[in-house]
Amino acid sequence: MRAARFYGPGDVRIDEVPEPKPQKGQVKIKIGWTGICGSDLHAYLSGLAEKLMPDGKTPHPVTGETLPVTLGHEFSGTIVELGPGVDSKRLSVGQDVCVEPLISCMKNSCTMCSGGSRNVCPHASFLGIAGWGGGLSEYITADQTLVFPLPRGMSLEVGAMMEPLAVAWHGVKRSAFKPGDKCLVMGSGPIGLMVLKVLKARDAGWVGVSEPSVSRRKMAEEHNADALYDPRSVDVVAETLKVTNGEGVDVVFDCAGITASLALGIQAVRPRGFVMDIALWEDNAHVDMNALLMKEVTISGILGYDRVHAELLEAIAAGKFQGLEKLITRKIALDDVVEKGIKALLKEKDTQIKILVNPHRSA
Amino acid sequence: MRAARFYGPGDVRIDEVPEPKPQKGQVKIKIGWTGICGSDLHAYLSGLAEKLMPDGKTPHPVTGETLPVTLGHEFSGTIVELGPGVDSKRLSVGQDVCVEPLISCMKNSCTMCSGGSRNVCPHASFLGIAGWGGGLSEYITADQTLVFPLPRGMSLEVGAMMEPLAVAWHGVKRSAFKPGDKCLVMGSGPIGLMVLKVLKARDAGWVGVSEPSVSRRKMAEEHNADALYDPRSVDVVAETLKVTNGEGVDVVFDCAGITASLALGIQAVRPRGFVMDIALWEDNAHVDMNALLMKEVTISGILGYDRVHAELLEAIAAGKFQGLEKLITRKIALDDVVEKGIKALLKEKDTQIKILVNPHRSA
Repeated sequence: MRAARFYGPGDVRIDEVPEPKPQKGQVKIKIGWTGICGSDLHAYLSGLAEKLMPDGKTPHPVTGETLPVTLGHEFSGTIVELGPGVDSKRLSVGQDVCVEPLISCMKNSCTMCSGGSRNVCPHASFLGIAGWGGGLSEYITADQTLVFPLPRGMSLEVGAMMEPLAVAWHGVKRSAFKPGDKCLVMGSGPIGLMVLKVLKARDAGWVGVSEPSVSRRKMAEEHNADALYDPRSVDVVAETLKVTNGEGVDVVFDCAGITASLALGIQAVRPRGFVMDIALWEDNAHVDMNALLMKEVTISGILGYDRVHAELLEAIAAGKFQGLEKLITRKIALDDVVEKGIKALLKEKDTQIKILVNPHRSA
Repeated sequence: MRAARFYGPGDVRIDEVPEPKPQKGQVKIKIGWTGICGSDLHAYLSGLAEKLMPDGKTPHPVTGETLPVTLGHEFSGTIVELGPGVDSKRLSVGQDVCVEPLISCMKNSCTMCSGGSRNVCPHASFLGIAGWGGGLSEYITADQTLVFPLPRGMSLEVGAMMEPLAVAWHGVKRSAFKPGDKCLVMGSGPIGLMVLKVLKARDAGWVGVSEPSVSRRKMAEEHNADALYDPRSVDVVAETLKVTNGEGVDVVFDCAGITASLALGIQAVRPRGFVMDIALWEDNAHVDMNALLMKEVTISGILGYDRVHAELLEAIAAGKFQGLEKLITRKIALDDVVEKGIKALLKEKDTQIKILVNPHRSA
């Protein structure tokens, strides 16, 4: 079968690789669609995140693989084969599914893996980053516990976005957010928009979005943001104070990952408020700790998710999300993954949100 | 009566001022002892913290006062008079007491003041900083709700340390700490040592202390730290991993307030662990946000306390604290407050912990 494999920065090749066979407890999935993620761009530009795939030459401690690896961790597909021992009451051939692509050590001695926090296991990574195949190939096998049937009526296209939506869901869940809260989202790229959608689905009282790009602000508006701010021309803190009785918002979600957005978040949040960071950072943040402690603000950050796919899919089945398909801005074939996928996301940053790849299509 | 008043950086004078009279609901207290705090040093060097006493010329929004103000917010004393309307079942003349010196707007419309977080009211400050008198004078009046009788057997000297101990108590309470937890304290100055004592009183499983000064490490040892590390010569992260099954400590208390200590804390804490910051910072912190989010670490900070004095005094009465008097390293007279107090704390940083002032004594 064909697969887009990562050899190093700037080097992604379409290779012919063997089709995987489902092992005990695994299902084989024919990939439907695979989204390109910010971390794929990061990998293309400067390499895989070191924490997720240490140096690419030493075998990853869990998968045992080195470079090249097949890319793609945001994917949906259709089950084509059940391996031995798969629960056939829950999963069956022909079913459309999405996958929680988390890899971790799963040792009993690991507090993280035996608790509810596999994603912070010291050896945590993802399918499509640390090995065991990826979504940018025709087929993949995955352990049945990671595979979730799509709710009735959900397309494979939307199914491919369950992974980044699970990141947003997990970020909201790990924050101090509760229904009715007033929130500010910094940055409305793919993750910012998904956080906005999760907040709306979970009954936020008000969600403002701060975003310098006109077209990204427009998208946030289409996804029902209650207020849009251009931080370059508007005093975001003063504006949010106006809608929060002078106190500040309950929770800030920093989806931009730069010092300016984090600093603005700390200023805009209410005393004892919460700032959740969901972004990969290029540089260290400069944080005014006195501002933080004078208001007793709490800051945290997240990476991925752990077992939130089921509740996310339930919320979608219950009709809590609308217009997810509007997040898809382009659909391309496997051969175009670099030129019309990765490079387009870098160049057309303002207008592209989610580009989906069909690994069965040629250019 | 005599009072040490702050006129501006480097300018503290012993003035003759009128004795205060207790108003409705207030008691008049003859000051026993008053501790000098790090924020008093900060005031002496570079002015009062701007958040607490905006510019010293504009009247403080709650007290209406401008400079000069009487200093001293860590104090104990003896009730000498009850104003009208004071609950005489709870408070009586001759009683030794300590005071929660918090000032806030106390308006019904203020969520902070009507909830449990007066200390983060936008106008919060302290007696001895923003006006209404201070502990570095012979007498003070305070609202009865801020006045707490000392437990049987507690000296006025130890009583004067209830204020900084309440800061440590509040910091531990606002963190994710639970009994049995393994903790690391960065810096064993006055607040670091008090955090150590609170952690021991609240049944921490293990408390390590990282501190570059030999004599401060020795003091932490005397106050029963389980391990002492010199961060200049020892790999603190590696050492703490050894005692935590390779996972990292549950909670870090940064009582140093520099980038190096915060960074070390983020490295030494376990995945999903908590870093509590209890320090005033001179500069912005440089924070490796990726390190934070890869482990989903939470950082928060505190300022002061809100209504924790009662539970702290209960814990002391129940015998949870030992050897508090050992934190007192010098006792001086009011006239010596600058030379033998503030300047000594700046010069003899390694050996002085708590210097107490008796405002009724001359040099």
